[in-house]
Amino acid sequence: MANTQTVIFKNKPVITGSYSIVGPKEGEGNFGKYFDYVMKDDCFGEDSYEKAERKMIEQAITGAIQSAKIKPSSVDLMLAGDLLNQIISSSYAARQFNFAYLGLFGACSTMSESLAIGASLIEGGHFDNIVCSTASHFSTAERQFRFPLELGNQRPPTSQWTVTGAGACVLSKKGVGPTIASATFGKVIDWGVNDVNDMGAAMAPAAMDTMLSHFRDTKTTPDDYDLIVTGDLGKLGSEILIDLMEDKGIKLGLNYNDCGQMYFTREQATLCGGSGCGCSATVFNSFIMKKLRAGEYKRVLFMPTGALLSTTATQQGDTIPGVCHAVVVEGVKK
Amino acid sequence: MANTQTVIFKNKPVITGSYSIVGPKEGEGNFGKYFDYVMKDDCFGEDSYEKAERKMIEQAITGAIQSAKIKPSSVDLMLAGDLLNQIISSSYAARQFNFAYLGLFGACSTMSESLAIGASLIEGGHFDNIVCSTASHFSTAERQFRFPLELGNQRPPTSQWTVTGAGACVLSKKGVGPTIASATFGKVIDWGVNDVNDMGAAMAPAAMDTMLSHFRDTKTTPDDYDLIVTGDLGKLGSEILIDLMEDKGIKLGLNYNDCGQMYFTREQATLCGGSGCGCSATVFNSFIMKKLRAGEYKRVLFMPTGALLSTTATQQGDTIPGVCHAVVVEGVKK
Repeated sequence: MANTQTVIFKNKPVITGSYSIVGPKEGEGNFGKYFDYVMKDDCFGEDSYEKAERKMIEQAITGAIQSAKIKPSSVDLMLAGDLLNQIISSSYAARQFNFAYLGLFGACSTMSESLAIGASLIEGGHFDNIVCSTASHFSTAERQFRFPLELGNQRPPTSQWTVTGAGACVLSKKGVGPTIASATFGKVIDWGVNDVNDMGAAMAPAAMDTMLSHFRDTKTTPDDYDLIVTGDLGKLGSEILIDLMEDKGIKLGLNYNDCGQMYFTREQATLCGGSGCGCSATVFNSFIMKKLRAGEYKRVLFMPTGALLSTTATQQGDTIPGVCHAVVVEGVKK
Repeated sequence: MANTQTVIFKNKPVITGSYSIVGPKEGEGNFGKYFDYVMKDDCFGEDSYEKAERKMIEQAITGAIQSAKIKPSSVDLMLAGDLLNQIISSSYAARQFNFAYLGLFGACSTMSESLAIGASLIEGGHFDNIVCSTASHFSTAERQFRFPLELGNQRPPTSQWTVTGAGACVLSKKGVGPTIASATFGKVIDWGVNDVNDMGAAMAPAAMDTMLSHFRDTKTTPDDYDLIVTGDLGKLGSEILIDLMEDKGIKLGLNYNDCGQMYFTREQATLCGGSGCGCSATVFNSFIMKKLRAGEYKRVLFMPTGALLSTTATQQGDTIPGVCHAVVVEGVKK
């Protein structure tokens, strides 16, 4: 694999099932009609937001397995992670299932990290069905990374709104559905951004780095894709990415967008848009999957980004490293 | 892969290089003479313990690559994780290297999680060299998971001592060294233990589950291994595992031991022994690797366990789930 970051799959793994579940605010956003399930309230019948986040993952995984029309006993492996300390949402959700579990942490890049690893494992020939999942919850993220909700603090204009939602899909060796054609594994990139309220700016260089590597490794250009979509760069971060790519001589056109930027309506006043693992995960496993299944999209370059910071790192004066993993998903031929 | 949790590698990935670095207390322990580097103090020239932990990972990875006698540019991927929130030690260390990075979280099972994923990816045919790494630091773990060091609180008799140390190795498609014969991917197991000062008891059921699956899938018995070694069950947890296995009709003999139990001398008074990601990682990448390279061990079943809790989960009354991933490493034939 020397001098390349991309695996081109010979036997393209198939996404045989997918599922998305979101909170009420997300249900009122631009992708509302595409989600499989919209919760009536953010607590989802649990006594803490953390337990609600976990329950969303459980429902997303169960829903994805049903959508794939396989039995849970046919699943070999669960690949999942989330934003909470020690990724408890994923690990505790994994207790409910009788298959092996590998915990991942790629911050908001987790959906593509799990797809990239999962597709590589399926390609290896030993695995038949792998579940990939991630989630985030506005209220668990706010109190862990920022301020108590009760404080009602003002949000800076560069801030984004953590999506309450979980997405999951099943990757299979055989079956019917969109296929994963390639995966580009990203490097950790840190250009010295240290504003924790401006994650888009921190992550845009990682998106650029992975995008350049992807185009180089696969000998493609932006024109080869119906949709190029980052995860949660938000309004500002995706503009920075467009500028950075233009500096490198690559013009991103109307087929480029960002899940976070698209997620909420203007009236929902989320400032720079949606963020969190659940942002790209719920868009991917609803809107994007439906367009791929319908054959409306032939090739999508899906590239969620992650900001790999913690409050401890920030308090110790560290800057914010970013990472971005990309997968190319091809639509069902009609 | 239905009805099995184990991948048997057709082209056994080779561990071409390894490196271990530990703190002064660890250097005075039972494996002292086997480690590549013993730090003079726990701060390692940095102004915080967190930065010291990160620097240990950087040195371990650099050392493993040198030990493998390859150039850093030949490394395709880094698989790493640690105990700190948002695995900052691994992610920030990854900034120093120019290869792709996948963050993992398996708590103290991370060394075998990275080896199991890494070996599966190498077997898939697309990757040439993958670095696997993990670390822990007594002082970062204490203040994140337990109490401020300055409090000087009394330690309960079931407690273990988080190892300050990092281990790394290079998995390669080709080369000379011990080889990975199989990997058993573990399920998340929770038997309801909720004492955060008794991790061994919380993790022992996961070790049992993975060990039973491994023996079933590979049609082997304890007698087929020169060494069967868990990660950090400690004195109490490993006794529980021996009892649990005996209940299942499998007797673990003198070839079974636990890295945490063996790590420190009696005089070091660590109660139930060593723990943390760095515990099994530094023993594996020093003592065990040297015995495998020398051909003294022909087959080792390496199975670190992880306790998948967070302080938030504990505060909300949750019990402690465990996970255990196992790899079989075969020695160099003499």
